[in-house]
Amino acid sequence: MTGIVVQNIDRAAADVIDGLAACGVATVHEAQGRTGLLASYMRPIYTGARIAGSAVTISAPPGDNWMVHVAIEQLKPTDILVIAPTSPCEDGYFGDLLATSAQARGCRGLIISAGIRDVRDLTEMQFPVWARAVFAQGTIKASLGSVNVPVNCAGAHIEAGDVIVADDDGVCVVKRADAESVMKAAQAREANEGDKRARLAAGELGLDMYKMREKLAEMGLKYV
Amino acid sequence: MTGIVVQNIDRAAADVIDGLAACGVATVHEAQGRTGLLASYMRPIYTGARIAGSAVTISAPPGDNWMVHVAIEQLKPTDILVIAPTSPCEDGYFGDLLATSAQARGCRGLIISAGIRDVRDLTEMQFPVWARAVFAQGTIKASLGSVNVPVNCAGAHIEAGDVIVADDDGVCVVKRADAESVMKAAQAREANEGDKRARLAAGELGLDMYKMREKLAEMGLKYV
Amino acid sequence: MTGIVVQNIDRAAADVIDGLAACGVATVHEAQGRTGLLASYMRPIYTGARIAGSAVTISAPPGDNWMVHVAIEQLKPTDILVIAPTSPCEDGYFGDLLATSAQARGCRGLIISAGIRDVRDLTEMQFPVWARAVFAQGTIKASLGSVNVPVNCAGAHIEAGDVIVADDDGVCVVKRADAESVMKAAQAREANEGDKRARLAAGELGLDMYKMREKLAEMGLKYV
Amino acid sequence: MTGIVVQNIDRAAADVIDGLAACGVATVHEAQGRTGLLASYMRPIYTGARIAGSAVTISAPPGDNWMVHVAIEQLKPTDILVIAPTSPCEDGYFGDLLATSAQARGCRGLIISAGIRDVRDLTEMQFPVWARAVFAQGTIKASLGSVNVPVNCAGAHIEAGDVIVADDDGVCVVKRADAESVMKAAQAREANEGDKRARLAAGELGLDMYKMREKLAEMGLKYV
Amino acid sequence: MTGIVVQNIDRAAADVIDGLAACGVATVHEAQGRTGLLASYMRPIYTGARIAGSAVTISAPPGDNWMVHVAIEQLKPTDILVIAPTSPCEDGYFGDLLATSAQARGCRGLIISAGIRDVRDLTEMQFPVWARAVFAQGTIKASLGSVNVPVNCAGAHIEAGDVIVADDDGVCVVKRADAESVMKAAQAREANEGDKRARLAAGELGLDMYKMREKLAEMGLKYV
Amino acid sequence: MTGIVVQNIDRAAADVIDGLAACGVATVHEAQGRTGLLASYMRPIYTGARIAGSAVTISAPPGDNWMVHVAIEQLKPTDILVIAPTSPCEDGYFGDLLATSAQARGCRGLIISAGIRDVRDLTEMQFPVWARAVFAQGTIKASLGSVNVPVNCAGAHIEAGDVIVADDDGVCVVKRADAESVMKAAQAREANEGDKRARLAAGELGLDMYKMREKLAEMGLKYV
Repeated sequence: MTGIVVQNIDRAAADVIDGLAACGVATVHEAQGRTGLLASYMRPIYTGARIAGSAVTISAPPGDNWMVHVAIEQLKPTDILVIAPTSPCEDGYFGDLLATSAQARGCRGLIISAGIRDVRDLTEMQFPVWARAVFAQGTIKASLGSVNVPVNCAGAHIEAGDVIVADDDGVCVVKRADAESVMKAAQAREANEGDKRARLAAGELGLDMYKMREKLAEMGLKYV
Repeated sequence: MTGIVVQNIDRAAADVIDGLAACGVATVHEAQGRTGLLASYMRPIYTGARIAGSAVTISAPPGDNWMVHVAIEQLKPTDILVIAPTSPCEDGYFGDLLATSAQARGCRGLIISAGIRDVRDLTEMQFPVWARAVFAQGTIKASLGSVNVPVNCAGAHIEAGDVIVADDDGVCVVKRADAESVMKAAQAREANEGDKRARLAAGELGLDMYKMREKLAEMGLKYV
Repeated sequence: MTGIVVQNIDRAAADVIDGLAACGVATVHEAQGRTGLLASYMRPIYTGARIAGSAVTISAPPGDNWMVHVAIEQLKPTDILVIAPTSPCEDGYFGDLLATSAQARGCRGLIISAGIRDVRDLTEMQFPVWARAVFAQGTIKASLGSVNVPVNCAGAHIEAGDVIVADDDGVCVVKRADAESVMKAAQAREANEGDKRARLAAGELGLDMYKMREKLAEMGLKYV
Repeated sequence: MTGIVVQNIDRAAADVIDGLAACGVATVHEAQGRTGLLASYMRPIYTGARIAGSAVTISAPPGDNWMVHVAIEQLKPTDILVIAPTSPCEDGYFGDLLATSAQARGCRGLIISAGIRDVRDLTEMQFPVWARAVFAQGTIKASLGSVNVPVNCAGAHIEAGDVIVADDDGVCVVKRADAESVMKAAQAREANEGDKRARLAAGELGLDMYKMREKLAEMGLKYV
Repeated sequence: MTGIVVQNIDRAAADVIDGLAACGVATVHEAQGRTGLLASYMRPIYTGARIAGSAVTISAPPGDNWMVHVAIEQLKPTDILVIAPTSPCEDGYFGDLLATSAQARGCRGLIISAGIRDVRDLTEMQFPVWARAVFAQGTIKASLGSVNVPVNCAGAHIEAGDVIVADDDGVCVVKRADAESVMKAAQAREANEGDKRARLAAGELGLDMYKMREKLAEMGLKYV
Repeated sequence: MTGIVVQNIDRAAADVIDGLAACGVATVHEAQGRTGLLASYMRPIYTGARIAGSAVTISAPPGDNWMVHVAIEQLKPTDILVIAPTSPCEDGYFGDLLATSAQARGCRGLIISAGIRDVRDLTEMQFPVWARAVFAQGTIKASLGSVNVPVNCAGAHIEAGDVIVADDDGVCVVKRADAESVMKAAQAREANEGDKRARLAAGELGLDMYKMREKLAEMGLKYV
């Protein structure tokens, strides 16, 4: 089951991907029924980035980044690399040279449930990364892994071509087949939130806006 | 013991609260005998904020943020929300809509021993948060908790109306009844530190300034 | 074995220290055969600093920072303080007064496998720190430790006078005796990387540049 | 606030303490409204013990077990020692000599949010301990703490004389004033559970026994 | 996607399930290409149990165990319950009453990436559990989850009817469709291991038995 | 620096090794000035074992156990294997086949700052192991490491031939050159402890036995 590179993967439409990026992780996660979040230990190396793209997945042996070179050849513009080691490892799989190569092919960023290094260079290049650890420990190139097979990354099941959305709140995966409907649901939530935000900013209480008082009283809430 | 909202709480004087904010967490913590710190996993979502305010506390069921809406009605200007889930939970209880509502009532920030989301929006709004986790996982509104009851937040016992001080060093709670005396002790430390800082910057050694050499020799310190 | 201050330590040459700083942690770590990294929980309190210096080591009792005052007297310009508690402790051993004193003696920064406080002041002073925790909990001055003895700091064995390199990727220690040869190996890597970076940026693939295709095929990699 | 030994503390009645022990942690915790649990990292050093007793509390400096000797003099038969360091510390505060001394005074066991050592001897002596860590690192006797003051132990607020219940499920604290009513509520739960257990063992489903089917259907549960 | 109970699930053959149990986790994991392990934090509540069974899965809201009652009705003899909360939670979802009910239906044990309680009773009943935490904190019955839908449990993707194997080494999942071939591969490994074990016990070295010396020399291993 | 096997190592005398084993970890650690403990996450796979032996060290690549076969040839009766991966890894490096081979050569046990598997078999064989994790994830045999070079294992610096002492309290390393003097100091402590234990068991207080009352009063301890 190892040593396989799937070359042709289906991707979501570009406008759907960009639509999801604009909504951000929290809204997208809500819009698809609160599923698809990666674990909270996946943190951005710098703040402020918000991206979406199609997942090019890498199942990598612990401490071995050989497959990253293989995967870079499979990247198309707007893709996002997703690296999942097959056992826990915080080694630095990825640094500025690989980022230069990935960026040259239009890659929008990296999601990795392992370590990352050259953080200063990556920040200067504005190549965003969400990683489990920052660690300069290098890796080797000795064993095969696979590219574009399903992976378990930070607790989420990700298949090649699924849409990844990432921002300061973390990382969320949207199944490719659901991407358009999730985008529409997310945009609907956003539209709805603008109005709510204005009313709340004006001092209206959520208790009134959402008509919660009666239900709270019925459940026994007591003011003392 | 659940389902209670305490409406009238006593608060410390505004000048005392602001005096404590000016001193910051490390000094206030020293000034009250090294007590009152919340655990070190409570980290700010952005650096540079330094606030103090009266605690409006929320004891919340895990994964349920209904009581936050109830608590917002109890906020007065300069208050700080303190949310403690009753069992470990890193769900995102609080985001930009709740922050908009809290900020509209003059709330200075949030302390939460659980998760937070919409970090980018909260940063833009300059609504400071000290949280245990950043996680986009949403919450429900199904069970009652309580507002303005004593809570255990990140290892500290906090009662409604206690003064919360928070900055890049973490979060500290000052009992309301002690707030004025702690502020004075903290200010005295500060005054004292200015002089020390100048002498140390000029190259004087702490060994001499604090007259430590004799005691160290007596305890057996050997220079080789 | 406690209560000793070693006063005369050997240091690496200044140009070697600065040469190592310019290369950064990831390159230095590679150049010395992937050894010498401190654990990944050692994080900088602010991003962007890149320093190197000679280690002045402190073996400190848990929760007791008395030896820091003793060590500051031993600092020479460009040194770096290295504090290792003898049992796990996240107390804040070091704050702005000690930093003022250390900076006055030319100290370039602090590496500490325990806690740190006054983060805002340290950031304003541009005194860089790599620490295990930010925690305002104060320490006492009651027990002796030692200065300039070998310590185990965040999993690395460090002797006084070893060269410490630290940046956003973490912290690495270079044995004093190896410092010059490691610097040369690191500089050679850097020279080599500039060319690779340009080729990768132009779109050449690592698969071709490093001639990996044949070996991957031989090991059984399958494209499907 | 440090350096105080409170000598006269009130204790719950012996039959109430023993009644709580017989019910065990999970039942007692339910009976008092799901409050009072210490954090789940408090684990027994051997399985099978189930005890209750009055808390004799120790607020100890990190790495300093001097106050344990002071507290042992305050022990009365059936008491339980509760040790809480004032900052995180996994040093071994307590071993077989202290256990021998405590057991000689009728002490039933130890709850400690720090480290413990001599585990093999303590097991042979059948002196039960619930601890955060097993660690042979010794402590010193240099600084004062306090005895029988309120402490925060593993996230719970404990006052001297409160009843501690501990078994393989963890540790729970019952306020002294509530001990009798909690015991009665716990015993009522137990009586009730015996009948339920028999029906469930006979194959009756909780869905029927608790009449859950209708409510589940109403909330929208779908069988497919 | 919540509130669904899948009633008819396919299961592997009974002799295949028992064959996998006999091989144990480490061998089964090897036999299926080193895939399927749950995270190492899944620990048995008592040692010595070794079981296999068909997964009846529960996707549960955090802190809410209502779906466990629903799932128990779906259990057939030799099944294993698999509970995965939808966000991190160490509450005690399961205790002796639920175990009595599950055992009455022939359930062989429980795998849960959350908390468990009544450990002493479960041990006496010999109802084995692999859990993330032991914690007496109770749960509520307020929200729907789903039964027999795919879940992510401790980092592994598990579908209803997959075979779970669990022993002192941890927990492994075998896809239902692969169960027979994996069993055969595991049995072949076992047969092979008996011979190796005898030779190693007699003093033969792995270096010779596996003919490693030449390859090691070729890679440059030096004896000094 | 990798790919080296040091064949001739010096060992401490057999009676010294056995004398240290008889004293146990806590006493040995005290006797050598509270140094040499490995981190508290090193836990025994079963309770009750107490061993000492000469360290045969293995510096292993993450996820690669090839060097264990090489090291077994270097084992002499009463040696203890010490495995330290060069980057964090919880893979199961060692199981029942390797234990059979090691035991055939007289090896007394294993210390490993990584994972272990076949726990049930190892327990039946009474081959004691202190490990960081139990995890069935297998390893490969692809890269060289070294044998009998200095390693950093769980935070301690260990050289080949150093004496390892391990029991339920954890693991401690004694420098070979210090072994005899540490044994004598440990035995002296033990002799001394027997008398103290008898007096404490008879009800004498440590406060009196160690004459602490006066010093405590002098430091300001107040009885209220």
